[in-house]
Amino acid sequence: MIGRFKQYLRVTTAINELQINEIAKCFKLKKVARGTCLVNAGDICKEFYYIGSGGIRTYFLTGAGQQCSRLIALEGAAGTALSSFIGQTPSTEFVEALEDSELYAISHQNFRRLLVEIPGWLEFYNQFLEMAYIHQNEKLQQLSTLTATQRYEKLMKDKPRYIQRLSNKILASYLDIREETLSRLKSK
Amino acid sequence: MIGRFKQYLRVTTAINELQINEIAKCFKLKKVARGTCLVNAGDICKEFYYIGSGGIRTYFLTGAGQQCSRLIALEGAAGTALSSFIGQTPSTEFVEALEDSELYAISHQNFRRLLVEIPGWLEFYNQFLEMAYIHQNEKLQQLSTLTATQRYEKLMKDKPRYIQRLSNKILASYLDIREETLSRLKSK
Repeated sequence: MIGRFKQYLRVTTAINELQINEIAKCFKLKKVARGTCLVNAGDICKEFYYIGSGGIRTYFLTGAGQQCSRLIALEGAAGTALSSFIGQTPSTEFVEALEDSELYAISHQNFRRLLVEIPGWLEFYNQFLEMAYIHQNEKLQQLSTLTATQRYEKLMKDKPRYIQRLSNKILASYLDIREETLSRLKSK
Repeated sequence: MIGRFKQYLRVTTAINELQINEIAKCFKLKKVARGTCLVNAGDICKEFYYIGSGGIRTYFLTGAGQQCSRLIALEGAAGTALSSFIGQTPSTEFVEALEDSELYAISHQNFRRLLVEIPGWLEFYNQFLEMAYIHQNEKLQQLSTLTATQRYEKLMKDKPRYIQRLSNKILASYLDIREETLSRLKSK
């Protein structure tokens, strides 16, 4: 499964084969069951995940204890509690396995070492950060500008996989709508 | 004013003096009056700004025509309509000068060229993206977890300059609260 990640690096960066293997060696396979909590709020996030199969989500809790899901990453994508991973500061988010998953985890220490040793890894990280920013910015804007129905329709168009695979509870918390509203939208 | 930016690069990256001067040469001084619109929604954002003096903000409009301010960058900071700048896609945000400002603008073309030619510039961009992501993520979370009062108090603690320098209209649109609510909070 890490082969797909290696292929991604070959296509999008100037990393040579020797370096790609060095990078791949830093990713350790971690099989986790659905619902496993990988990072708790308050933890310092020490790992970055490439999703071989399954998926993860990040979420935080509102004052009223409601979950707000933010990042969803399914197989072929990568993710973590990024703010905590960057600053090595206590996380305000949780990271949870959405399904039984095969994750490839790289430690923060190795991640940073590769940034110094392999210029192409910096290039990969740059692309990852650009995408993460665009995603966050879109999310921030959609929550203020789109109605519940529009957010659901946009997700159906852009990420139909999410609707097929995520539970209503998680989908609703990703769209910032109530589960009853989601059920109503789905039944239409 | 660009001297401060050069100093920042010296301290935070491994860029040598020759390269720093090459980078500085790409930044063109742009004096703009308060209220100048630098990027309109729908434009492709072609420039990245280092703020010599004054400041800029990015904002978008809700369906009801209400402004939501997102990024505020005052002197010594940098910014632009980043999603559009990254993807060279039509912007969903506006960029506006908050005050009479001296901006140092680098074109998208030169910015990308420097990423290829000067490894330390990639390093700078990386740090910029990390900060931009952390800022966005915090904003996204605060809007769901903090009350109007808590958001105002947090801003007063973290960014007192914003409260001193921004108009109530812009401050309210940054905090996602009504102007009347802001006036009430300020008078307390």
